[in-house]
Amino acid sequence: MSMPPVHPDVAPLAFLLGVWSGTGEGEYPTIEPFGYEETVAFGHAGKPFLSYGQRTAAADDGRPLHAETGYWRSPAPGRLEVVLAHPTGVAEVLGGTFEATAGGGVLDLRTTAVTCTPSAKEVTALERRFEVDGDELRYTLAMAAVGLPMTHHLRAVLRREA
Amino acid sequence: MSMPPVHPDVAPLAFLLGVWSGTGEGEYPTIEPFGYEETVAFGHAGKPFLSYGQRTAAADDGRPLHAETGYWRSPAPGRLEVVLAHPTGVAEVLGGTFEATAGGGVLDLRTTAVTCTPSAKEVTALERRFEVDGDELRYTLAMAAVGLPMTHHLRAVLRREA
Repeated sequence: MSMPPVHPDVAPLAFLLGVWSGTGEGEYPTIEPFGYEETVAFGHAGKPFLSYGQRTAAADDGRPLHAETGYWRSPAPGRLEVVLAHPTGVAEVLGGTFEATAGGGVLDLRTTAVTCTPSAKEVTALERRFEVDGDELRYTLAMAAVGLPMTHHLRAVLRREA
Repeated sequence: MSMPPVHPDVAPLAFLLGVWSGTGEGEYPTIEPFGYEETVAFGHAGKPFLSYGQRTAAADDGRPLHAETGYWRSPAPGRLEVVLAHPTGVAEVLGGTFEATAGGGVLDLRTTAVTCTPSAKEVTALERRFEVDGDELRYTLAMAAVGLPMTHHLRAVLRREA
């Protein structure tokens, strides 16, 4: 099978495509700070969305930590819509914006809805910021959860794999 | 890397594991009936959830139709919690039950929350039923959407790939 071209709706986001890996640092008022290794994959199938998946492992012993999977859309130029599922029983719907830069782009997302299964830890809202500059992807994530207001949680720097 | 054992929480769902493929039929009062080919994959990583992904293609010309991705959990014996993301901008949180049978199991799920991005088609609620009997997986899906009450939408029969 030949690879279809990137759909025009998401072609402005093509700088995200590929597999990215690197390391990050997590913190939150209710937990001990921790380091992690991460792999993120953005793919496409010629349709008006990008597929997204990520997983992290603890920097100290390699045990699996977190994973997410979902889809990214751009319903209008510069606009983003993202839906994500977490294995902890959390579903995120995010809206936001992106701007092209010389080396890639800057993306800002905020949840418009967070819904949880009964056994999930309570998450109220998330803010995600991504910056792509060439083959480097940096992101930060802030979270309002377990009764706390929006608070910095994650920061990582990833490199695009060859 | 050796494969970790299935986590005890989801070991009773191990009959779902694998890659399944087959055909289905879709209908809804607002659309023309259609046939589709489908691949479903259930995986695990030794953690207390199963990963889930599926994609369908039109039976007539093979064009990609739909996809979903998410995670399945069992927080208590016989209980199910599922979170799914759709590339159409829909996030599903489902709750339900499952029962073991001689050849596998029967699973019944209903959405407890459906959230959508602004550009998504309005989906209000979904009901999903899965029956696994040996290497055959049958499912039906009903949907309340675009102002209509819960109405049958999809039916498929899949076989576990070797």
